[in-house]
Amino acid sequence: MDKKMLEEGSDVCINFEKRGGFVPAIVQDVKDGRVLMLAYVNQLAYETTLEKGMATFWSTSRNELWTKGETSGDFLKIVEILTDCDQDALIYKVEPQGGGACHTKSPETGKTRETCFYRKVDLESKDLKFV
Amino acid sequence: MDKKMLEEGSDVCINFEKRGGFVPAIVQDVKDGRVLMLAYVNQLAYETTLEKGMATFWSTSRNELWTKGETSGDFLKIVEILTDCDQDALIYKVEPQGGGACHTKSPETGKTRETCFYRKVDLESKDLKFV
Repeated sequence: MDKKMLEEGSDVCINFEKRGGFVPAIVQDVKDGRVLMLAYVNQLAYETTLEKGMATFWSTSRNELWTKGETSGDFLKIVEILTDCDQDALIYKVEPQGGGACHTKSPETGKTRETCFYRKVDLESKDLKFV
Repeated sequence: MDKKMLEEGSDVCINFEKRGGFVPAIVQDVKDGRVLMLAYVNQLAYETTLEKGMATFWSTSRNELWTKGETSGDFLKIVEILTDCDQDALIYKVEPQGGGACHTKSPETGKTRETCFYRKVDLESKDLKFV
């Protein structure tokens, strides 16, 4: 597909090949725009996401299709999918159906963290601080 | 670094090695939470971002350090940097200093698009629609 079609066209032509079969999918809470997690999507995961209406990824560590929530119950319901200019990144805008999106739990509450991005870099000390 | 330190610690230990030297950096407008772009960061790009206070990436196509805005003027000033649980993805929260974050221009206005994510998948037709 030429550059103009890729950037200005209406055909979905996600460039999975560019980085070994996967594109990163940014998962964003549709309610407040918070980024919940980032995971990887291949052709099958993309199609499964559309079919199920639930955020589905390819687990590059377990090497298998991964519909978030199938073991934990923390499904992420798809509201919107966006692609970027050169179609090598996606945004899944979701409504979380369970406790959170992260696999970690807060030591204080014992509950699943809502987002994987719970630490920021302190720009002075260069260390991480919990947000 | 063990899993507990990685997930619960305060040491920055970004896992660049996991995917060939780079991690994806989600660029988010601090004003409204809109995702503007996604690009890749290696150790040098991360350090340069901290040093300059401007979003810097590694261009995997040109194979060079890339401080966004150096040619276009569209710098992305760093307000906050977040990392995820297993430290293999970053969020750069930024204040755009120029016209936008995308390299494309809107055919209607002739202006640089503010975000690279200007199309969404129509969940019925599976085609792209401009947002």
